[in-house]
This record gives sequence, C-alpha cells and structure tokens, in this order.
Amino acid sequence: MNNAKFPIHPWKITEIGFNPQHLAENESVFALANGYLGFRGNLEEDAPTGTRSIKGTYINGVYDTAPILYGESAYAFAKNSQTISHVAETKGFTIKADGEHVTFSQSLTNHVRELDLYTGILTRTFSYKTKKGGSIKVQIERLVSQENKHLAAMRLKITGISGGCDVEVTSGVYKPEFEIAKSDDPRTATGKDMNMILTTSGTFKPHYGAYTVLATKSSGMSVAAAITHQVTNAKATPTGESAWTFKGNTSQEIIVEKFATYYSGESKNFDAKQCRDEALSAADTQSYDTFAAQQKTFYKNFWDEVGMDIVGDDATLQGLRFNMFHLLQSTGQDGRTNIAAKGLTGSGYEGHYFWDTEIYVLPFMLHSSPQIAKALLMYRYSILDQARVRAKELGHDKGALYPWRTIGGEECSAYYAAGTAQYHINADIAYAIASYVRFTNDTEFLCNYGTEMLLETARLWYSLGFFNTEKGGKFCINHVTGPDEYNAVVNNNVYTNLMARENMLSAIRTLNDLQAKDPQKYTALKNKTNLSEEEIQDWDNASEAMYLPYRPDTQIFPQDEGFLDRKPMPIKDIPKENFPLLLHYHPLVIYRHNVCKQADLVLAMVLLGDYFTMEQKRENFHFYDAVTTHDSTLSKAVFSILASEIGEHQKAYDYFMFTARLDLDNTHKNTKDGLHMANMAGTWLCLVQGFAGMRCYGNTLSFAPHLPQGWESYTFNMHFQGRTIKVYVDKSGSKFSLVRGESIEILVDGKSITVHSQQ
Amino acid sequence: MNNAKFPIHPWKITEIGFNPQHLAENESVFALANGYLGFRGNLEEDAPTGTRSIKGTYINGVYDTAPILYGESAYAFAKNSQTISHVAETKGFTIKADGEHVTFSQSLTNHVRELDLYTGILTRTFSYKTKKGGSIKVQIERLVSQENKHLAAMRLKITGISGGCDVEVTSGVYKPEFEIAKSDDPRTATGKDMNMILTTSGTFKPHYGAYTVLATKSSGMSVAAAITHQVTNAKATPTGESAWTFKGNTSQEIIVEKFATYYSGESKNFDAKQCRDEALSAADTQSYDTFAAQQKTFYKNFWDEVGMDIVGDDATLQGLRFNMFHLLQSTGQDGRTNIAAKGLTGSGYEGHYFWDTEIYVLPFMLHSSPQIAKALLMYRYSILDQARVRAKELGHDKGALYPWRTIGGEECSAYYAAGTAQYHINADIAYAIASYVRFTNDTEFLCNYGTEMLLETARLWYSLGFFNTEKGGKFCINHVTGPDEYNAVVNNNVYTNLMARENMLSAIRTLNDLQAKDPQKYTALKNKTNLSEEEIQDWDNASEAMYLPYRPDTQIFPQDEGFLDRKPMPIKDIPKENFPLLLHYHPLVIYRHNVCKQADLVLAMVLLGDYFTMEQKRENFHFYDAVTTHDSTLSKAVFSILASEIGEHQKAYDYFMFTARLDLDNTHKNTKDGLHMANMAGTWLCLVQGFAGMRCYGNTLSFAPHLPQGWESYTFNMHFQGRTIKVYVDKSGSKFSLVRGESIEILVDGKSITVHSQQ
Repeated sequence: MNNAKFPIHPWKITEIGFNPQHLAENESVFALANGYLGFRGNLEEDAPTGTRSIKGTYINGVYDTAPILYGESAYAFAKNSQTISHVAETKGFTIKADGEHVTFSQSLTNHVRELDLYTGILTRTFSYKTKKGGSIKVQIERLVSQENKHLAAMRLKITGISGGCDVEVTSGVYKPEFEIAKSDDPRTATGKDMNMILTTSGTFKPHYGAYTVLATKSSGMSVAAAITHQVTNAKATPTGESAWTFKGNTSQEIIVEKFATYYSGESKNFDAKQCRDEALSAADTQSYDTFAAQQKTFYKNFWDEVGMDIVGDDATLQGLRFNMFHLLQSTGQDGRTNIAAKGLTGSGYEGHYFWDTEIYVLPFMLHSSPQIAKALLMYRYSILDQARVRAKELGHDKGALYPWRTIGGEECSAYYAAGTAQYHINADIAYAIASYVRFTNDTEFLCNYGTEMLLETARLWYSLGFFNTEKGGKFCINHVTGPDEYNAVVNNNVYTNLMARENMLSAIRTLNDLQAKDPQKYTALKNKTNLSEEEIQDWDNASEAMYLPYRPDTQIFPQDEGFLDRKPMPIKDIPKENFPLLLHYHPLVIYRHNVCKQADLVLAMVLLGDYFTMEQKRENFHFYDAVTTHDSTLSKAVFSILASEIGEHQKAYDYFMFTARLDLDNTHKNTKDGLHMANMAGTWLCLVQGFAGMRCYGNTLSFAPHLPQGWESYTFNMHFQGRTIKVYVDKSGSKFSLVRGESIEILVDGKSITVHSQQ
Repeated sequence: MNNAKFPIHPWKITEIGFNPQHLAENESVFALANGYLGFRGNLEEDAPTGTRSIKGTYINGVYDTAPILYGESAYAFAKNSQTISHVAETKGFTIKADGEHVTFSQSLTNHVRELDLYTGILTRTFSYKTKKGGSIKVQIERLVSQENKHLAAMRLKITGISGGCDVEVTSGVYKPEFEIAKSDDPRTATGKDMNMILTTSGTFKPHYGAYTVLATKSSGMSVAAAITHQVTNAKATPTGESAWTFKGNTSQEIIVEKFATYYSGESKNFDAKQCRDEALSAADTQSYDTFAAQQKTFYKNFWDEVGMDIVGDDATLQGLRFNMFHLLQSTGQDGRTNIAAKGLTGSGYEGHYFWDTEIYVLPFMLHSSPQIAKALLMYRYSILDQARVRAKELGHDKGALYPWRTIGGEECSAYYAAGTAQYHINADIAYAIASYVRFTNDTEFLCNYGTEMLLETARLWYSLGFFNTEKGGKFCINHVTGPDEYNAVVNNNVYTNLMARENMLSAIRTLNDLQAKDPQKYTALKNKTNLSEEEIQDWDNASEAMYLPYRPDTQIFPQDEGFLDRKPMPIKDIPKENFPLLLHYHPLVIYRHNVCKQADLVLAMVLLGDYFTMEQKRENFHFYDAVTTHDSTLSKAVFSILASEIGEHQKAYDYFMFTARLDLDNTHKNTKDGLHMANMAGTWLCLVQGFAGMRCYGNTLSFAPHLPQGWESYTFNMHFQGRTIKVYVDKSGSKFSLVRGESIEILVDGKSITVHSQQ
C-alpha cells in the first residue's frame, strides 16, 4: 500500500501532520465507541475554517422520527423515518495560549494523531508557539470505556517548552447544531431537521461539573450528558451555561482530566441524576489512568480471544485489525440495539440497521464473541411484534415481516423497490438464528426466542409465494428485491427463494425438535401463535416445490427469473466516471440492464454452498464476475470467498485487498459518512471462510486452507459449540489446536482429523 | 336513472333545493370554462359553515412549481412539481338584506341552480325573507365567454317581493387562500403551499372597477384580474382593497352586472393594463345581455356542428351532452395549452395533462372540432425540446421522451413506476398525430411539426428496446409500465410494443412521403435532427422483429410477458370496501397479483383493431373482463367499445352506462376534485366507435352500427377529410349523409356504400 494515508503498522493508525481534505473521513477513522456510546474522531477544538467536519456523538438506539415525505404516497408506504440523534458533545477542549486560540495555523506544528488498536486509546500531540514567543506541547488522550458503557474519559496535558505561557482551557458539554443537508445520494442522511431540543443544563461545583439534558423532537427520548474534571495547576471558573474555564501558566504542567457520562431513556420520567452521580463518582474515585488501564486490559483480552495475526503483510494486518476493532466498537450488546450500517462512526444511512447485521457482522461475532451474536438476535426478537404488524400492512394475515431498515423496529425505507421489497431480510434473520444455534448449541435461546421468530418468518414466505400453474405448480416468490439492488422487484430471485426455503425448513426442523424435547413449550408456542399442523405441512410443500431458475446447458442460475432477459450493458463500456451507476442512471435504466451492484447468486453460493456443485460455483462465479459493478461495498468480500473456494486464488486475494483497507484508504470516497461495517466484517470472512475455507454444513466444521502469496502465515481463533479452535496456516500447511473445550472432529480439505483437547 | 341527483332533461342540469353534502361535487358539475379561463361552480356567497367547498378559478397553463420531495431520491427522478394555480376570485357577490347576510338558512327558500348546456349559461334563483319581514327574489346568471377567452360576465338581480328591503351587494376581486391539504390518495393534489402572491391591487372609478395582480411563487407567472360593473338602482362606494359595495332598496329592482377579465403572462414585464382596459371596455360598450347572446350563438353552432342526439333515453342523452359540453369547456385551443385530467373544473391530479388527451379527448375533438385536435398536437410540439432533454436524462443519446404528466413540459411524476415508466406516452402522441393526419389530410401540419415528433419518438423506442437473444432475437421493450397501472414496470407490454411499432412505422412512412413530396424539407429536417438513413432502417428492423407475447392455444395475449405468471387474486373474493385497490394495498401487493386497473390489451384491440382477429378479440375480452377492477375511470369505455365490436351488446351498454353519467351521478365519489375528462370523452367514443362501430383502417372509414335496446334512434356528425358526415341509426337500420364535403365511399357492416355530396 504505497499510497496509504497512514504508516503501515500492525497495531496503530497514525496521522502525521494535518491534511484538511482528510478531516471528515478521519473523523470516521478515529471514531471511538463501545456499542452504546460513540464519539466521532472530531478534533477537540473547532475544525479549521473552510474545512468540512461532521461532528458526531451518538447513543446506539437513540433516534428521532419524522414523517417521510413522498411526492406521491401510496398505501402502506413506510410512514416515518428514524434518524440517529446527535447527542451532547463533550469531547471538546478550547485552548487559548497567551490569549491566542490554539488551532491549525503556522503556529501549530508536529501534529500527530494515533489510534492504538491494541489499547483502544486515541492520542494526539502537537506543539504551539504563541506570537509572544511562548511555546507549548499539547498531549491529549481520549477513550470511550468498554468497561462502563456510559463513560468516556479524556486527558489534556499542556507542557511549557520555552517561556511560561498563560493558558486557558475551556471544557463543557454542549448541544450540537446541524444544518439541514440535502442530497440525491440515497446513502447519506436525508435533509431533515433532527437537532435535539435542550431540556435543561447547568454547572455544579464538585469536580467542576456540568450537564445537559437533550430531548428528541418526536420520538420521546432524552439523553443526559454530564462532565466532571480533575485539574492540576489551573484555576477553575464556570463559563456560560454548562462549561468551565481552567487558567494556568505553563511554568507548571497543566493537566485537565475530563470524565463524561451519558444516560438515555424515555423523555417522560427521565431523571438525569444517575448521569451526574456517575460523572461525580468517576472524578471522585478514579483517574484517567485507571480508566486507561481498564481499557488496555479489556482490549488485550479481546485481541487474545480473537487471536488473529498475519505474518508477512502488515498493511493487510493493519486493515483487518482496524476493521475488527471498529466492529467491536459499534455493535450494540444489550439485546435492544444493533449495529448500524455505519456503526457509531457516522450518520450515513440515517444510522439504520440492515441485513448487514445478520449476513456480515453476525458471523464475525458468532465466531469471535458469541454472546454479542446472541444480543444481536435478541434485538430482532424485541421487534417481532412490530414485524407482525408490518406483515399485516403488506397484506399478510399471518407471520412477521422484518423491516428492511430501522432503528426502533418500524419500517423506514422510503423507496420500496430497494427497501420494503427486500423481503429476504426475513430469511437472513432466520439464517442467522440457525447459524447461531448450530455454532453455540444454545437451545435455551432457540426454545424461548428463536423458534418463534423462525415460525413467524416462515409463515410470511408461505403467504407471499404461490404454487404457480405457469411454472408447473412450482412455488414462486414474485415481485421482491434480492440483495442486488440493481435488479429490483423481480420474480424468483434465487437468493431469496433458496433462503426462504431454508427459513421454512429451519422452522419445521426447530418445531419438530421442540415438540420432541419440550412438548409443553411446543404447545404453549402453538397456542401463542395460533399455529396449525397444516401450516407446517404447507411450508414443507412449498420448500419441496420451490422454483429455482436454472439453465442446465450452461449451469448458470439466472439471479432471478428475468436476469438473462435484460439488455446487455457491458461494464467495460461504461465511462469510469459513471460509477457508482446509482448516481448516474435512473433506476429504471439500471433495472432494465444486465448488470449487478452485488451478485446475490454468488452470495447464495457462499451461504448455502452445499446446494451447489463446485462446477456450478465456477461457472456462476465467472458469469457474475463479468456483470457485477461492485457498487455496493458488500460485494467484493463475497466474491473473494467464492473465488477462494473455486481455487481462483489471485482473484480471491485481489477482491480481499479491496475490502481490507477500504475505509483506511477511503477507496469508496464516502468514509466521511461513517465506516462500512458490513465490508469490515466481510474482510474477516474473506480470511476465515475464504482463505481458510471454513464452512459448517450440518453439524460438521470444515476447512480448506490456503495461504495467500506473499504471506508467511496467518492465524485466528474461532468459537464452535463451546470450544475455541486456533487455526494456523503457513507455507507448510495448516494446524488446528484447541484453546479451550472438548476434542472435535473436523474436515480439512475433505479429510477428517481430530483436534484434541488440551485438558 | 332513478337515483339521479338532477332531473332528467335533454339540455339542462338542474339542482333543486340545496344539499350541503353535494356542495363540492356540484362545484365541479356547474363549472364554466372556455379552454383558457375556468370557474368552478362555487356559490356567489361564502359556503355555509360546516360544508366542504373547494374554491377554484383557473387559467389553463398557469401553474406554480415546487421541488418534489422524496424520502429517498435517485438520479433523474422528476425534480419539480407543477400545480395549477388558483387565480383571483371574481365570481363572488356578498348580499346583505336588511343588514342580514344572505346565505343558506331557513330564511332562504326556493333555491334552484341550472346549467343550460344549450346556451352555456349558469343561472341561480332563490327567495330570502329578512327578520324585519322584507322579502326578496335573487336571480344570478354567470357565463365564461367562449367568444372572448379573457372574459366572464355575471348579472345579479334583486327584486322585492313584499316590503321594501335595504340591500347591500359587495362585489370584488380577491386573492384566494388555501390551506395545505395532505392525503395518501395519489389522485388528489398534494400538500404543497401553492397560494399565489399578491403583487398589486386597487380600485378605479370608471364602472366601479377593481383589479388584482397575483404572481406565482416560483414559476415566474403573473395573472391580472379586473372587474367592472354596470349598476341599476344602487349607489356605489369602494370597499376595502379591491371591491365595491352597492346599496339600494328593493322598492326598485336592483341590478348589478359584473364583467371580469383575466390576463396571464410572464412575471417580468407583466403589464396589467390590457386587463383593466378590457374590463372597462366591456362595461363601456357591452352589457351582460350582449355577452349572453354571443354565448348562446356560440353554443347553438357547437351543438349544430356535433349534431348528436338520442331518442328514447333522455338520461343518457343528458349525460352525453353534459360530457361533451365540459370537454369543449376545458380544452386549451391556443397550441400552448392542453386539457388537464380534470379539465378546468378542479385541481385533482394537480391540473396535469396526461395521455388522456391523445387517446381519449383528441378523437372526440378530431371527429367534432378538428382545429382543436390540431391545437392539442401543437402543444406537444411546443414541448418537444423539453422531451429531448428528458430523453437524455433517461439515458438515451437521441430522441425525445414526452413527460407522463406535466403542464409546462417538464416531467412531474413523483412516482416513476406509474409515471416516468409509462413510456407509451410517446407512442400515444404518435398515434394521435397519425390519426389527425388520416382524418384531416393536414399535410402542412405533418411537414412542419408532425414528422419531427414522429421521428424523435421513434428514435426513443429504438434506443429503449433491444434485439433479445433470449427471445430469438426479437425486439423487446423491458421495464416499462403500460396504461394499466396495476401491472407496473413490466417486460413487453403488448400495448406498448404494438404502439411503439406503430410509432416507428408511422415515422418511416411519413419520412418516406416527405422525401418523395418535398425533398428540400426532408433534407432540412434530416439536418436539423441529425438523422441517418441507417436509423430509418433500424426502426424498420425493430418493427419487423417486435416481440408480442401470445399464447396460440388459448389465443390470449398476456398483457405483458409476465402477466399470466402472477398470483391469482379473484376479484369476486376482494371485499367490496377494498376498492379501488390502490387505496387498500401496497403497490407491491397489487403488482404481484393477476389483476388489472384497466386492461391495456383491450385498449390495444380498440386502437389497433386490424392487428387482431375477431376471435382473438372475443377471447381476450372475456379473459380480461374477469381480471379487471375498472379502478381507473378510463377503463369501462374501452371495454364497452370492444364489447360492441364482438357483439356483446348488453355488456357494451352496461359499461357505457357506467361512463355516461359518472360525474353527474358521482359514481366514483371523487367528482369534487374535478370532472373525469377522459371518461367523458370515452362515453362519446362508446357511441361512435362502440354502438356505431366507426373505424378507420388505412384510409377507409367504416361503420358497424347497432342500436342499444330501448333507444329509438341516435345520431351524430363526424368530420372526415374535409367532410361532415351525419350518421343516423334507428330500428330500421343506419343512414349516412353528408352535411358538407365531397362524396365518399365507406364500409357499413363490411359492405361498401357511397355517401353522396349534397352539392
């Protein structure tokens, strides 16, 4: 990576100097979060004039709503948007030296920002020389605590280099103000006024405290933010509504430690006391150093647990670790929140949760932190009732239809062809439930939550499709959009039909199991959901008769029934500046042509690999490789995985390399709006499912390891049914060992081997 | 029609008494217009409290624009809406008798309103008794002049019945105020603030004049409205900004004649002087009676010209005449305006022009007033450049794509699946051009305007479709919406493909003719449009290879390639309250099912009847009859015409009867938003193309007359190539005679007869 913005380092992302053009994208790169609270990597001071900065502090699950405006509305169009809220800003410090505002200028030198992935701490240092000749060194650290989800801690040190310099530091908690941005790019937040409203704010004496309570306009949510300080060598005075100013002279090192706490809740009965108490307690009983030490321990454990390393390619290793770090940071873990398309790093896609969770992020969690995977599925259970209501709105008497995009559970897609029509979200969730149970044997989850979700999603498919006399009585699912949004509202999308079948079969299997193992629970569930035995038979019939377009002569599965019937649009003939197509062609023009944003047939071949022969995989990979633009960042990882499987190792590596550093190198040009979480997880999948060839069909874990050219070795841990298995691949072959858990038989390149317990 | 709101009368629409529930719909029924200026049938006084009234005065072609809001926008989505403006109100009179506001109450009796279709004059009479015991009779007449498009005239007479009553009449010109209405019904105007802005207003002395100049917010248009008065037995004083009050006592009959003039233009350099001058001139040199006399002469001529009569069914005759009257009133005749879906009778569909013009209204005009048909086509020529720009936006290097809905020429459809995707608008216009030329022999129009439109629309089809190897190299047109909006974004819609073929063939034929007859003009057009001979060959190849889905075993033409592949939705199983489906099902649900709003295949069989055999017509009629909801008011007329052709006379009559009085009886429940112009024209087509079986294939006019049961006879005139042919059908058969023009050979029931010239 010659053109990398950041020096290659296995653990650190370091910005040397300051390039205002990278400001907004680096705010995403340097974001800190803990699954609940997220800080974009904004500078402590105001962004330099003329630069583009996107301030952001987020609480997972805190959003505001507004009616979706349609030029022409129709029945059951999604009614309301949900947009992640910008909560109070606490990460700022305003510094004056000899009365001068310390900000980027010729007086500011030696600027270095560094995110240490190994510790989860962001540091920043620079020097500043005042007109009077005073010279100071500024060191700032910032962390968003993984041990206490409500807390962030910062430390500012100002040291005199030459001459004593009068210094003033202002530190507060502020309500952010956003201008309403408008754009035709559907991937960025839409132009709604989503500023929160100030409920109350003020300062309190102990530990120079201040607080702010903000409320959303419509969604009935409130967020309190409080700050306290520990200050060395400076005098404090309250400033304005909710800030303090600390004055000192650099003849002595000035230290300001700042503890910020956030609590969210329903606006009615919302009490900010707990928030203030906790901020006080932090300053009373802890110091920045204690929080930093906790954070380091946490991350050491995390990295030990995932056990991932690559020898021989530090650039890729850096990219992969960066991605894993951000995935962990952005994922909600409380069973009531999830992971947004951009995580907690930006407000792109309005902060919505998509299928990205189940198909990309969840496998990473499942293999490295299964308890987080469970929390993600519990979120889906928490919105099951809303999905039942949505199914009714869409004309189904029974079943549940999960929202294509949402935060709180209500369907928020304002363009149904690439939203509501993506019924596959139901099957994606069902697939994730089945995977989770297969990898964890968590029958308690399955009994109490999973089966009900499988049942209600299976019902939806049966109601949606029909036995089509025009197709010899085959079960057809028409007028849906698969994952590939460049072929919208199609008939018999293979991905959808296969996944729907899997959904119905999982439901049948799980219900049968439940009936056998816990007849009482089975009866209770049947009664709760008013399920009849006939329905189960119906799903079986539909699965059996599922229509899957296929051309035996070429072994090609048309992505959907009409895919081969579209007007050719050779990708090589499209001018380079016309990508992504969605920003340069009317949807009708795109839909009319034989072109994919991401090839969902290729994805089906990865997720449901045992349905296809190796030869089919080869033929279809090459076929779709030629017609896919990869305008979605979800695309290339999937191509890489299948390329690995069919032995196209160079292709696999090339596609992998596009994904590995996508946000570090901002290759998609929109990192400013937030990091691409699904792609980040995809990178990890390329390693585990691609290079190492991990699959799990039935109950058998299998591998087909391959070492990319130029690498010495790679290794990673993965969880499987209570075990942690260490996978190690180098030029001499592969090794499997157990970090914990019982011995297990696995397949490696088709041969059975036993991985022995260490105990 | 036992439940008719209005007494059956061959010429009059009479409202006896007053039913507040009918107020808004009757404002549409009693609308007056002249193709330029339109008055809804609002009461002179404010509508009674608690009733729903929609005030409306319109100028054809005067609209405001606003950006279309999308929850999620995309490339080349229509950018701006255009909404017909509500211009200044002049039709009001406020009457006080003995100080009491004269309005609906127990004091107001004997209320009668009457629209005389034969004269074009609306009259209203009622009595009023004051608390003091004074009793008056009020008579009001209103006309919107057909002779002077800028003028409306009103006369108010107040006569004492018993006791002298002090009367005060206030008459002014006012800026209307509208609340912003919101609705999910796509057929009504959307919720935008489209109030015009007051530029200037005032009174002037001569003839108690007053004026108002209003401007649109964004579209750069201004409208001046001026009023003058002639007053008998009352004293005038100016009142407020732009009104006068006239006081008198009913011991003498009080007469207030009011002349209102309207002028529109671009806001910059707009001068209202002409408007005031004309209002003054009306009051100076004319009287209400002279305008009324002109109006009567105009309408006598119109009715003589169309020569339509039915003996034996006055209810239907009343409906038909009402429809013809309103079609004439609402149609722009200046070549720069057109006819809105609701004409000038209401602001439903935002006052937009659709294909309704070319396929429904234009044939009526062509057969009864060919010069108006020409003006409608000249409007399309006036927006050809905008259509060229739109084609480029939609990805076509060449050609023109007419807007699906517009006023000023820019595409305004905010929902592309039932808007932009309706490419057939291009072929509809081409079809109308070819029909116009066939019926008029107007080669001057063809040379100077028609050929260029045919050429540019033909180009679009060639660019849109492709020779599809999956269909044996046939020319396919995919991802378009035909006229049937319940099957949106489909492949190879038969209507579209057949009409596109006709479009290309017309272009070839016309260009060949031009080359032969006027090589210079041909070369000039080729140069102007950069046309190559290859292109003409391309169109020929595409026409030749046009793909038309067909099932030889059943003789069914699937409406589009996938029509038979949809999930069954038996219409009889749908609860009655769920119609129209569009208000009760998500578009995806409708599109997924085998159901039509209007069957466009049936329409194709009417418009391009020579392509189909009689047996095919029979089979397809019955097939589509079973799956069509007729949720569009454009549907039943077409079914009636085809039913006539295949000899299903009872069906033909039943469908016809639904259309004939649709607005008079408000059977679609939305007459309040304006009258259904396409349906009104469809009724007439049922008579001429249905019952009389008129067709013109090649250059031959043919008839297949049938007399509906219960009718004694019917008759109508029709224009054909400089002739006016009178068609008369009674129980003994049919008679054809020439009102003017040269002898002509026609086919009647397949037999050739000569209609002899009267000269």
